[in-house]
Amino acid sequence: MHFAEPLPLRCGCALADYTLVYETYGTLNADKSNAVLVCHALNASHHVAGTYEGQARSEGWWDNLVGPGKPLDTDRFFVIGVNNPGSCFGSTGPMHINPATGQPYGADFPVVTVEDWVDAQARLLDRLGIDQLAAVIGGSLGGMQALAWSLRYPRRVRHCIAIATAPNLSAQNIAFNEVARRAIISDPDFHGGHYYRHGVVPKRGLRVARMIGHITYLSDDVMEQKFGRQLRAAELGYSTQEIEFQIESYLRYQGDKFSEYFDANTYLLITRALDYFDPAAEHGGDLTRTMAAAQAKFLVVSFTTDWRFSPARSREIVKALVDNRREVSYAEIDAPHGHDAFLLDDARYHGVVRAYFERIAKELA
Amino acid sequence: MHFAEPLPLRCGCALADYTLVYETYGTLNADKSNAVLVCHALNASHHVAGTYEGQARSEGWWDNLVGPGKPLDTDRFFVIGVNNPGSCFGSTGPMHINPATGQPYGADFPVVTVEDWVDAQARLLDRLGIDQLAAVIGGSLGGMQALAWSLRYPRRVRHCIAIATAPNLSAQNIAFNEVARRAIISDPDFHGGHYYRHGVVPKRGLRVARMIGHITYLSDDVMEQKFGRQLRAAELGYSTQEIEFQIESYLRYQGDKFSEYFDANTYLLITRALDYFDPAAEHGGDLTRTMAAAQAKFLVVSFTTDWRFSPARSREIVKALVDNRREVSYAEIDAPHGHDAFLLDDARYHGVVRAYFERIAKELA
Repeated sequence: MHFAEPLPLRCGCALADYTLVYETYGTLNADKSNAVLVCHALNASHHVAGTYEGQARSEGWWDNLVGPGKPLDTDRFFVIGVNNPGSCFGSTGPMHINPATGQPYGADFPVVTVEDWVDAQARLLDRLGIDQLAAVIGGSLGGMQALAWSLRYPRRVRHCIAIATAPNLSAQNIAFNEVARRAIISDPDFHGGHYYRHGVVPKRGLRVARMIGHITYLSDDVMEQKFGRQLRAAELGYSTQEIEFQIESYLRYQGDKFSEYFDANTYLLITRALDYFDPAAEHGGDLTRTMAAAQAKFLVVSFTTDWRFSPARSREIVKALVDNRREVSYAEIDAPHGHDAFLLDDARYHGVVRAYFERIAKELA
Repeated sequence: MHFAEPLPLRCGCALADYTLVYETYGTLNADKSNAVLVCHALNASHHVAGTYEGQARSEGWWDNLVGPGKPLDTDRFFVIGVNNPGSCFGSTGPMHINPATGQPYGADFPVVTVEDWVDAQARLLDRLGIDQLAAVIGGSLGGMQALAWSLRYPRRVRHCIAIATAPNLSAQNIAFNEVARRAIISDPDFHGGHYYRHGVVPKRGLRVARMIGHITYLSDDVMEQKFGRQLRAAELGYSTQEIEFQIESYLRYQGDKFSEYFDANTYLLITRALDYFDPAAEHGGDLTRTMAAAQAKFLVVSFTTDWRFSPARSREIVKALVDNRREVSYAEIDAPHGHDAFLLDDARYHGVVRAYFERIAKELA
């Protein structure tokens, strides 16, 4: 969907003219009341569910949760996945042409925020003729977008489902993002963000950034179970540069894969959107006062072993909602997988989400 | 101290001819029974205590713990600090000349292990005429050396003081080391470890490595207290490449400082020594069977907020000692500072160490 009217951004500038790539699943009902918006996290996209014809292994990133008969049932709901501006999966981003210069944006792509993304998504819904969402749902950075929807467009959201998220990043969260950014920016192939014109990609930096990310997505326990101190070869090779342990092999593989498909400028933009998200900042840090603006009913889900966005951070959201006498269901899922759990098919987690959507479906009937 | 006889290493090779830099504090008593060896961790050295004449701010890295009247009282004990081979503070390391080639070792410096270091330290004690240590003490990687002493030279150690350490690294610990190493190795100025001959230093990689390290040294809580979401400027600048948050400024400063004085090959060697340390591996992973070799009395200390080497890892050591009916005191200090706590002047922590050394002093009297 192309948008000719500029999108004003928090940074003070505007996105002049932009395209949003989106996918939909299921059918919008007659009164347009069964729409569910799925917000994506760091390296995901509009491709939430299903596979592309003739493309094996093209499952959407939340295909285990979204589809016919699945917890978010596309036989009942009209599900929308939209790629956010600044991303690298089709919507206008740093690799696209800056109309002001005729060159790719590169590092000049405007710094977008969670709120800007939500505004862009709202315009897409306007075009689709959807006034109110049955639900907005997201995990991690996607959960932040769901929260921002409930605050920015309170009357357009009946239910807000925020999974494995936080009301803002902690200093440690920002620190991990900053190290990842430094790895990218200090890669000589980054060229200040204008690597497209040099025909190179800062792969070394992207690899390190992704390796750091992966450590924070997994719990200490699951890493220990999956890899422990297992060696790749039968014996130690006594080398500082070669792989010795399986965990090293796994991280390098993840880093290599990521550096092949992800854009470095997008990585910087998306980690910054995470850093900046802090709706309570406008209310002196008071999350209770902040959440007073929300009108939706909430489902908040966290995972016991998630040390990136720990259950304590979800409970802050729940407390602020309870303080405001808002209706909120909270599930703290005992799952071993750390932050990654929100993407995995855990029976108790999916059971909670399924039950919640069944309740929403009943409201529709 | 120069050593002409080769030091056989675990990797199968040997260090041909080497020098160990060391410092001593206090006076060795007549029966040579009051010697305490202090083992250093990642970026520390033989310079444990005191300041150098005419050099302000040259305090030793454990100056708050070691000195006249301090918990490890140099009026009573003869304290030895020794820089390990492979380090970059004077003992033979990768920047020194490889006698086999006449060129700096660089990446060809043999891969040294905790056990190799302990063997090198034992030879130094031989030369100093010290048969038995009143105590060996170390924190973190230094604590691993203390444990290795108790296993490798059981009759030469009366007391073993292992602080903020672990019987081996977890998969997550190895993962952080591996990311740091990748940052260094993939810096184009690394030149496969032979950067000396190119007249460059892989500073970008060292900076990122140190930033990652710093995140793991501090607790989430102390980072939150010290930095939280404080901005450097009065307002957000909306930049992906410039500093916005104080935590970013802190990490960059630490990274820059480190890259000015630390050697990249040493960083690889020392993180590998951490990875490889696993005395129980020779006993099928059974730490109880492993610790049966130890004859010393033990003090084990951990810190509640240390998520790098958590109290649970120290309790594994304590359990293995108790299983063997060894004498062990264990203190789990409630301190907010994370792994860094072992270097800080915490009253309860220093009180425990002081009391333990007073007990050792009584045995001497």
